[in-house]
Amino acid sequence: MLGFPLIVLNFKVYLEAIGENGIRLARYAEEVSKEHGVSIAVAPPVTMLSKVIHAVGIPVFSQHVDPSPPGSWTGSVIVEMIKECGVAGSLVNHSEKRMLLADISTIIKRLRESNLITLLCTDTIETTKAGAALSPDIIAIEPPELIGTGISVSKAKPEIVAGAVDVVRKINPSVHILCGAGISTGEDVAKAIELGTEGVLLASAYVKAKDPRRLLSDMAQAALKAWEAR
Amino acid sequence: MLGFPLIVLNFKVYLEAIGENGIRLARYAEEVSKEHGVSIAVAPPVTMLSKVIHAVGIPVFSQHVDPSPPGSWTGSVIVEMIKECGVAGSLVNHSEKRMLLADISTIIKRLRESNLITLLCTDTIETTKAGAALSPDIIAIEPPELIGTGISVSKAKPEIVAGAVDVVRKINPSVHILCGAGISTGEDVAKAIELGTEGVLLASAYVKAKDPRRLLSDMAQAALKAWEAR
Amino acid sequence: MLGFPLIVLNFKVYLEAIGENGIRLARYAEEVSKEHGVSIAVAPPVTMLSKVIHAVGIPVFSQHVDPSPPGSWTGSVIVEMIKECGVAGSLVNHSEKRMLLADISTIIKRLRESNLITLLCTDTIETTKAGAALSPDIIAIEPPELIGTGISVSKAKPEIVAGAVDVVRKINPSVHILCGAGISTGEDVAKAIELGTEGVLLASAYVKAKDPRRLLSDMAQAALKAWEAR
Amino acid sequence: MLGFPLIVLNFKVYLEAIGENGIRLARYAEEVSKEHGVSIAVAPPVTMLSKVIHAVGIPVFSQHVDPSPPGSWTGSVIVEMIKECGVAGSLVNHSEKRMLLADISTIIKRLRESNLITLLCTDTIETTKAGAALSPDIIAIEPPELIGTGISVSKAKPEIVAGAVDVVRKINPSVHILCGAGISTGEDVAKAIELGTEGVLLASAYVKAKDPRRLLSDMAQAALKAWEAR
Repeated sequence: MLGFPLIVLNFKVYLEAIGENGIRLARYAEEVSKEHGVSIAVAPPVTMLSKVIHAVGIPVFSQHVDPSPPGSWTGSVIVEMIKECGVAGSLVNHSEKRMLLADISTIIKRLRESNLITLLCTDTIETTKAGAALSPDIIAIEPPELIGTGISVSKAKPEIVAGAVDVVRKINPSVHILCGAGISTGEDVAKAIELGTEGVLLASAYVKAKDPRRLLSDMAQAALKAWEAR
Repeated sequence: MLGFPLIVLNFKVYLEAIGENGIRLARYAEEVSKEHGVSIAVAPPVTMLSKVIHAVGIPVFSQHVDPSPPGSWTGSVIVEMIKECGVAGSLVNHSEKRMLLADISTIIKRLRESNLITLLCTDTIETTKAGAALSPDIIAIEPPELIGTGISVSKAKPEIVAGAVDVVRKINPSVHILCGAGISTGEDVAKAIELGTEGVLLASAYVKAKDPRRLLSDMAQAALKAWEAR
Repeated sequence: MLGFPLIVLNFKVYLEAIGENGIRLARYAEEVSKEHGVSIAVAPPVTMLSKVIHAVGIPVFSQHVDPSPPGSWTGSVIVEMIKECGVAGSLVNHSEKRMLLADISTIIKRLRESNLITLLCTDTIETTKAGAALSPDIIAIEPPELIGTGISVSKAKPEIVAGAVDVVRKINPSVHILCGAGISTGEDVAKAIELGTEGVLLASAYVKAKDPRRLLSDMAQAALKAWEAR
Repeated sequence: MLGFPLIVLNFKVYLEAIGENGIRLARYAEEVSKEHGVSIAVAPPVTMLSKVIHAVGIPVFSQHVDPSPPGSWTGSVIVEMIKECGVAGSLVNHSEKRMLLADISTIIKRLRESNLITLLCTDTIETTKAGAALSPDIIAIEPPELIGTGISVSKAKPEIVAGAVDVVRKINPSVHILCGAGISTGEDVAKAIELGTEGVLLASAYVKAKDPRRLLSDMAQAALKAWEAR
């Protein structure tokens, strides 16, 4: 169901993504995915997981999940909760929700045991290396200083993207690799794939776009074209 | 809609409260509330807020809410998200999700601005005093060492409950006060009200009860009887 | 030994305050304190507490202290450790080291039991109110948005300083009150005292001054003059 | 100066290690180290680093260090501070002071740039693998469930110790490997070395021993004997 190239849309907790508008942003993603035959996943605010999964047929991710097992953990969002919603997997260790090394390891194991996909976020080539050693399904490298800037990592720091692709191949070639931070155009997506990644993770550029459907359509086409040219 | 005496049921993230079973636990609460005319609120796992609110007509609380405003806060659960679900309010600073003093203050303000109720948890007479100064709607004092033990705070530490009632009256008499930790029987509930509280907060005793509906019915009757005897 | 008006100098972990230079900054403070007969305390980096206390005869504070008791808490800085160094007390809940409400309460109790002074930092009138309810010895209100700006709270937000003085008097008049954030000149210090505080907490303006001794001397004189005019 | 086999003594913040007694515990370590020619390092409470380093000629480690650079980080313990004390290096990510993956990576880089040794603590074979990818100087694997129990990891979970040795050799053979948790006797130390480690990390068994000097002497002899038999 989840294929590559892959575009993951993180809705964060933007006002534009809470409520009906968030459902609409997920529906556009589904439409574009079907239209172009490119894999697109969405990560809506966690309180909307059930509704979004009910509304669309594309993979839905949680933005975060806590390492705790079921029990006395008031306020936690645990694997069993997101599984019950019907998610495909979860982002882990996003730069806005960094986790302890020990917890990342626990979470990856817990997600795997529930047949859920781990999309681990990392910030540098070094942490990508460490992350790959933990065998998540997917790693997305995102230099935090570029997140939300509109300056894409694939153009501004191609050596970091290429370096991350490289270490993942060396340490654990079964891990898929995406990049993120500042991805705003189809060109940014194409460039990311040319550098060896299998897709992108983006947020504000999509959620806050004047015409998100159109932007995503551009990105999907650029992704496919770059993918075929590999 | 939310009246006193009040029984608040925290479902935590117990396996027994995730999915259909959690909805059932909320329905029992609604039935008992209507049958005895006593105010009962539930706090289900946060990913289930929408479903539970759709299913029942009693007040539903979030178990936690983060202080961040809408924006780039991947994985957070913010006020706007739980408001959109239709909650009555949120627990804040539960012993399993302690918060910074500065954040507690921010959250109370943000919940108030959204017309949502703050149920602030505290652990000692001292923190109850500090909490009351922040003007939440409700405070629940819960000595953490008794949580989940089945040894009720109202019987084991009546001086702490009475002391908390006392400081709240002195510092800020408009704040409602509950107690929690180890509340397991109708007798525990009655004792809590006799000590001056306006209700209780409980979790495992209800969620893990053999017959939760019956236990809650006992508690509701005991609460009413103690309330009338004040 | 600690009197009012009081000037507290937080050295943070500026490079200018680590090693011999930090000792010198503490010595200047001692000299100015003796010269003008005004109470000045210093809070050097925690690894330098012993050395600074050995070097000067003015009160020395820790910048932070953890709530844990002695035991298995690798890497913590606990009350017994700073007591052994000979400190007068500790800053608690600085905006760069915010603490849980429950921990702040524990720490104040533990410091008091060791006859050490608590200097609790708060950020708003609301948290000052809550803080005063916990009975620390001293509260320093510091709006975080002004820290390190050179725009002094006493000039830019006099209503917050006056409001904090007001709530402390109402809730707990035995608590001493300072203000901080952006305090850079003798005039800022005078203004703070005119607004009802009993002194100031400052950092970068002193540590990074071209002539820290002279600046502090100006501040001490301004403090005394404003104090006598009350 | 730091050789192998290596015995690292973590004093934690035990009452027995604060003040003069802590200096004495460090002196015994120095005496035993010289007597048997085995490398022993100590990690005293951070406020005592300077005093201990002044008192003994063996390598001294900090128990923790924060990732922040010099600056506005009130209450932090940064690399420049422990360097100024004269430490040989620092423990990082002890089970009682777990760190974010991103921060661990930053810290290792910062310590290396200051020519200080990183002793990274890990809890499982998985996190040891990830840790090795970050190229610390030394890794100490410590299953947290055994810490402080007196049940040694080398006897109770030899497969974890051997597994950790194995993954470190595969991922990054230049990393030295120790094990810890429950190490209480010379026999435990010998067993650890037989399993392929280059030494041990221990705490309570030494700090709380009736005769710490004698215990350490036993351990040093056992370490040497096992080391020669490799």
